[in-house]
Amino acid sequence: MTPPASSASGHASPASRPIAFVGVGRMGANMARRLADCGHRITGVYDTHAPAAAALAAELGTLHAKSLAEAAAAAEIIFTVVSDDAAQLSVFADPAGGTDSLLAPSAKPRGKTFVNCATLAPATHIEIARRAAEAGAHTLEACMASSIPQARSGTLYLMCAGETEVFARLEPLLRQLATDLRHLGPAGRAAQAKALVNMVMNINTAALAEGLGLGQALGLDLDILREIFAQTGANSQVLKTDGEDMQNRAHDCFFSAAHAAKDSTIAWHLGCETGLHLPLAAATKLQFDKLTALGLGHLDKSAVAELTFRGRHA
Amino acid sequence: MTPPASSASGHASPASRPIAFVGVGRMGANMARRLADCGHRITGVYDTHAPAAAALAAELGTLHAKSLAEAAAAAEIIFTVVSDDAAQLSVFADPAGGTDSLLAPSAKPRGKTFVNCATLAPATHIEIARRAAEAGAHTLEACMASSIPQARSGTLYLMCAGETEVFARLEPLLRQLATDLRHLGPAGRAAQAKALVNMVMNINTAALAEGLGLGQALGLDLDILREIFAQTGANSQVLKTDGEDMQNRAHDCFFSAAHAAKDSTIAWHLGCETGLHLPLAAATKLQFDKLTALGLGHLDKSAVAELTFRGRHA
Repeated sequence: MTPPASSASGHASPASRPIAFVGVGRMGANMARRLADCGHRITGVYDTHAPAAAALAAELGTLHAKSLAEAAAAAEIIFTVVSDDAAQLSVFADPAGGTDSLLAPSAKPRGKTFVNCATLAPATHIEIARRAAEAGAHTLEACMASSIPQARSGTLYLMCAGETEVFARLEPLLRQLATDLRHLGPAGRAAQAKALVNMVMNINTAALAEGLGLGQALGLDLDILREIFAQTGANSQVLKTDGEDMQNRAHDCFFSAAHAAKDSTIAWHLGCETGLHLPLAAATKLQFDKLTALGLGHLDKSAVAELTFRGRHA
Repeated sequence: MTPPASSASGHASPASRPIAFVGVGRMGANMARRLADCGHRITGVYDTHAPAAAALAAELGTLHAKSLAEAAAAAEIIFTVVSDDAAQLSVFADPAGGTDSLLAPSAKPRGKTFVNCATLAPATHIEIARRAAEAGAHTLEACMASSIPQARSGTLYLMCAGETEVFARLEPLLRQLATDLRHLGPAGRAAQAKALVNMVMNINTAALAEGLGLGQALGLDLDILREIFAQTGANSQVLKTDGEDMQNRAHDCFFSAAHAAKDSTIAWHLGCETGLHLPLAAATKLQFDKLTALGLGHLDKSAVAELTFRGRHA
């Protein structure tokens, strides 16, 4: 276990600054557990699903914040791990509207730093950074290209974007969450890179589903076919993570089809904005949209195979 | 270097049986060189491009056959390494028509074995096997999932199909060409598996081109983006083989876009025959068809990036 950082100066080190978490699903909760293990003070947790926050608060012996403002008020560094763009914009709602918000006056946002981990449209991160700056707060986007076990063990792959000074200040803290950590530039840059990672990953996933589905329809032995794929130009990371699951219809969720649909849509929008013709990105977006429309968005992204194997849901 | 096989029995061992090559482009020529290095007797070479056959015949000190029938007559095992289905059907033309053919009476086909290495529609291999059987000859399909350097060094990945007895008889010979060798079943099975390998490979290639093209349009550093892809769910074999080439427009041909178009079309036909909905396979076929229609089919398959990067050929 990495020991907590210490500071000989009079300034608060990242290790000593109180930390809150907003959004404590499996990713957020595991990140909080990891930082607590490293000796950091987790001083508040919040989730729209109150029982999740209550359970984690009890586990970590910390405050179960009943509002966003209360969570932010309890800490100096606030991690947000929410589900999508709408949720992210909502937790940073304009405080002038009087709704609960991380930027409400009672949240005392001035000087605080918000670390936003969801996979979002780049424009959302830019908008959040603008709203936070108006309230005197800082933001850093920290996009994760890894999953729940890596969050627990502090071995995430983190792509960050935001002001260089903010990144530098948080880097020691983030290194306790991530074995790979990059600063890619100003607000929006990490979200762009993350969107591209997930766009290519999702296309490769849908491609694999087509290959295995066609192999099955032709009567080939899929164990052997996957071995062949692994040893040839058809090899990919998703073959390792999703191939056997597609074959066995084992779609327990690690990365949901609904998230894949969302991320492919973010990338597809970027493609539209740039005017590029990206037919595979478009076809893949439609596959994951279809899966979600069929009510299967809660399954793992490997469930895209349900659309290509003969006699399954399609 | 693997020594040639020897046989203590009175029967001819595979090593001692004369071998001819039909189609001596870079793959076929390198396979012939490798077998000659292993001590096999190459007794004839043929190519529709006569200078290629003449040069290889001079290099190996063997017969430059002036017809298909002469090539087949010169050997007991005949490797065919042709470009496509039409070429494969042509070299096995019905001898009743009086055209030059590996099955012409003067080729003395009875008891001979034809090893067919091109990536073809499965139905073509089945038809060739039927024609050869009518002439008293045997066939084995030996689909290669590797490239020119592997042919030279005897480290090919070979997927075979045909009668078990034929495969067993040729296995010692084929092991001098391949480090990975599989028998997948009766005629057509290897072509099916190969079509699926190339279908998935081509989709992943087109996906990578979209990801890098969009990354460039967004102003991301593509060296860093490729590193990120390599460490995340976007990783793939084609990222290793084609990523940097796409970025640098280095499309010297290892596997041509025209071949990719052909192979994606074979897989797309299989999808149509099985009635499956394979939107990514279809979109990828169209991309490589388009590249070929634009006159870029001679470039490496990495040139699909020319269709997705802003300001290139598209």
